[in-house]
Amino acid sequence: MTTFHTIEWKNNTVVLLDQRKLPNEETYVTCRTYPEVAEAIKNMTVRGAPAIGITGAMGLALAGLSLQTHSVDIFIEELIKISDFINQTRPTAVNLSWALEKMKRLAWHEHEKKTSVTDLQKILVAEAQKMHAEDIELNKRIGKHGSALISDGSSILTHCNTGHLATAGYGTALGVIYSARDEGKKIHVFADETRPFLQGSRLTAWELTKSKVPVTLICDNMAGFLMKQGKVDLVIVGADRIAANGDTANKIGTYSVAVLAKTHNVPFYVAAPLSTIDLHTKTGDDIVIEQRSHQEVTEIQKIKIAPENITVWNPAFDVTPSELITGIITEKGIVSGDYVKGLKQLF
Amino acid sequence: MTTFHTIEWKNNTVVLLDQRKLPNEETYVTCRTYPEVAEAIKNMTVRGAPAIGITGAMGLALAGLSLQTHSVDIFIEELIKISDFINQTRPTAVNLSWALEKMKRLAWHEHEKKTSVTDLQKILVAEAQKMHAEDIELNKRIGKHGSALISDGSSILTHCNTGHLATAGYGTALGVIYSARDEGKKIHVFADETRPFLQGSRLTAWELTKSKVPVTLICDNMAGFLMKQGKVDLVIVGADRIAANGDTANKIGTYSVAVLAKTHNVPFYVAAPLSTIDLHTKTGDDIVIEQRSHQEVTEIQKIKIAPENITVWNPAFDVTPSELITGIITEKGIVSGDYVKGLKQLF
Repeated sequence: MTTFHTIEWKNNTVVLLDQRKLPNEETYVTCRTYPEVAEAIKNMTVRGAPAIGITGAMGLALAGLSLQTHSVDIFIEELIKISDFINQTRPTAVNLSWALEKMKRLAWHEHEKKTSVTDLQKILVAEAQKMHAEDIELNKRIGKHGSALISDGSSILTHCNTGHLATAGYGTALGVIYSARDEGKKIHVFADETRPFLQGSRLTAWELTKSKVPVTLICDNMAGFLMKQGKVDLVIVGADRIAANGDTANKIGTYSVAVLAKTHNVPFYVAAPLSTIDLHTKTGDDIVIEQRSHQEVTEIQKIKIAPENITVWNPAFDVTPSELITGIITEKGIVSGDYVKGLKQLF
Repeated sequence: MTTFHTIEWKNNTVVLLDQRKLPNEETYVTCRTYPEVAEAIKNMTVRGAPAIGITGAMGLALAGLSLQTHSVDIFIEELIKISDFINQTRPTAVNLSWALEKMKRLAWHEHEKKTSVTDLQKILVAEAQKMHAEDIELNKRIGKHGSALISDGSSILTHCNTGHLATAGYGTALGVIYSARDEGKKIHVFADETRPFLQGSRLTAWELTKSKVPVTLICDNMAGFLMKQGKVDLVIVGADRIAANGDTANKIGTYSVAVLAKTHNVPFYVAAPLSTIDLHTKTGDDIVIEQRSHQEVTEIQKIKIAPENITVWNPAFDVTPSELITGIITEKGIVSGDYVKGLKQLF
C-alpha cells in the first residue's frame, strides 16, 4: 500500500498529486472542471501514459456532470467536442485517446438505449472510476508476467517514471520491479534522472525510496559507462505508444538507452498495458512526437541554466525500433520476436 | 577576440572567470595564494583539462613567490610538496600533473645552475605565463588541423565545454569549430547540456553565442534520437587524458555519445593537445576516474531535485575505447588507426 494517491475521484472532483512539486512537496491539486483537468495534463501536474488516460476519462466524466441539457443528442455532441479538447493536450501517448474513446463509445452505446442525461452522467462517472481500478489490476498482471524475467540479485536500469505516479497505481516497468521485490527477489534499481523534466530523480527515486526498493540515481549520460562496467543486468522501460510492428515511443532518451543496451548485450524490455498498443499506427514513423517548451531545458524551477534566447531542441519522446526490444511485457503476457503477429494476437 | 579572460596572471595574482556563475553572471575570482588556486580548481571555478593545467602552474608560481627562504634547496623541497598538494585536487586530467611537472623540472634545472631563490621565483612566474600564451597558440594549430575534417554546411555535436573557457583561450574541440567558422564554413553546433555540471548549457552555449556560432542546445539523452534523424555529421569532443593506446578519458557521457556515433556511422573525433596524451598510461583501464559529490546530481544551485539521502553514482569522467575514435586531432596533426604507433610518433 502506498501512502499517496496519484489520481483520485472525490466528491465529483479529480484530485491529483502535483508531480511538479515532488520530491520536495507532497501537495494535491483539486480539479473541479474539465478545463482544469486538461490544464493539469498539459502542464504535467499529472503525467505518465496510463495516468493521463485515466485523468482524461475523469475529466470527461466531470464535463458530463457540467452539461446543462436534457437532450441526449446535445449531451453526446458536446461530449465529443470536449473529448477532442482534452485529447489535444498531449499528442504522443495513445492511452489518453484510448480512454476518451472508451468513454465516448460507452456514452454512444447508452444513447442508443435511450438512457437519460442524468443516467449517462452517472454511467460516465462510474466508468472513469472503473478504469482507475482496472488499471491497478492490470498493472499487477504486467508485474507478474515481467517478474519472471528478473533473476534474484539483478540490477535493473530504468528510464523516466513508470510506477505508482505514472498510472492509477502500482506501475508498468516499476510494477515489474515491485512484483519481483514482492516475490522476495533481491534487486537493485538504477534510475536515469531523465532530463529535462527529471521524472527519474524527482519521481522514480522518490517512489522507490518510499517503497524501500534499493535505488541509485544516475544522470542519463552515465548509463553507457554503467553498462560497460557490467553493472546492468536488464533494462525495463514503459511506453507512450507502441506501433503495430512493436516500435515504441517513450520518454526522450529511451532510444539511446536501447542502443547502449544492444551494444552491451543487455536485454531491453518494454512494459505497458494493451491500451498503449495502437494497431492503427503501423510503425514508429507514424507516431507524432510532442515538442515541448525550451524552458524545460533552460530553467530548473525558474533558475536559468542556459543563456537567454538560446535555441533548444526539446522532443518529449523518441521512438525505439522494435529490433532493439527484447520483449514487450503486457497484462496478457510477453511478446517478442515477430511483433506484428504477436501484438495482433493480444487483441 | 573574446571579451572575457578565463585565466589571467595579474599583479602577482591569478584572476579566474568564475565558471560556476555562468551564464547568469560574468564575475571574476582573484586568487592571491596557492591554496586559493587549489580550491578554485577543486570547486570548479575553473575547469577544463588545459585550463586547470595552466591554473595549476600559476598556482605553483604564486607558491614560489610566497616562500620565505634564501635556501634554494628548501625552496625546491617546498615547491615539490605544494605541487603534490595542487595536483591532488583533480585526479583524472593529466594536464594538471603535466603542467606542474614542467614547472618543477624547470626549477630543478635552474637549481642545478645555482640560480638564486629570487631569480627562481621570477623564472616560474614567467614560465606559467609562457604556458598560457603557448596554449592559445597550440589550440589554434589543433583548430587548423581539425578544420580540414569539417565540410561546409556540417552539423557538429559536441559534449561538455572545450572552448575558450576550458583552455587558456580558443579551445580544443571548440577551437576546431572556431577555425572552421573562421575559414568561412557554414556550420551548426549541437551542444549536449552535459549533466550534472551543465558545462554544455552553461558554458558552451554561452561562449558559442558570444562568438556568434549557431548552436542548438539539447539534453544529453537526445543525442541518439538526433543522430537517428541524420542531423549530426560529426562529433568532436575534448579529452582529459589519452592513454598510449588512444583510449580517452573525457567528461562523463562521452562514451555513450561515442557508442551512439558508431551505431549511426557518424565520425567521432577527439581534439586535444599533446599535454593530454599520457604515454605512461597504457590503456583506459589504468585511468583513475574522479568521483564527485552527490549534490552535483541532486541539487541545482541549492534547489533539491531528488529526494534527501538518495544514493547517487557520480563519476566525473568515463573512458572511450580507441576503437570508437575516428581520429585524435593534436597540434601536430591527426592520428588515427594504429594509435599506439601514431601517438608515440608525436613525441
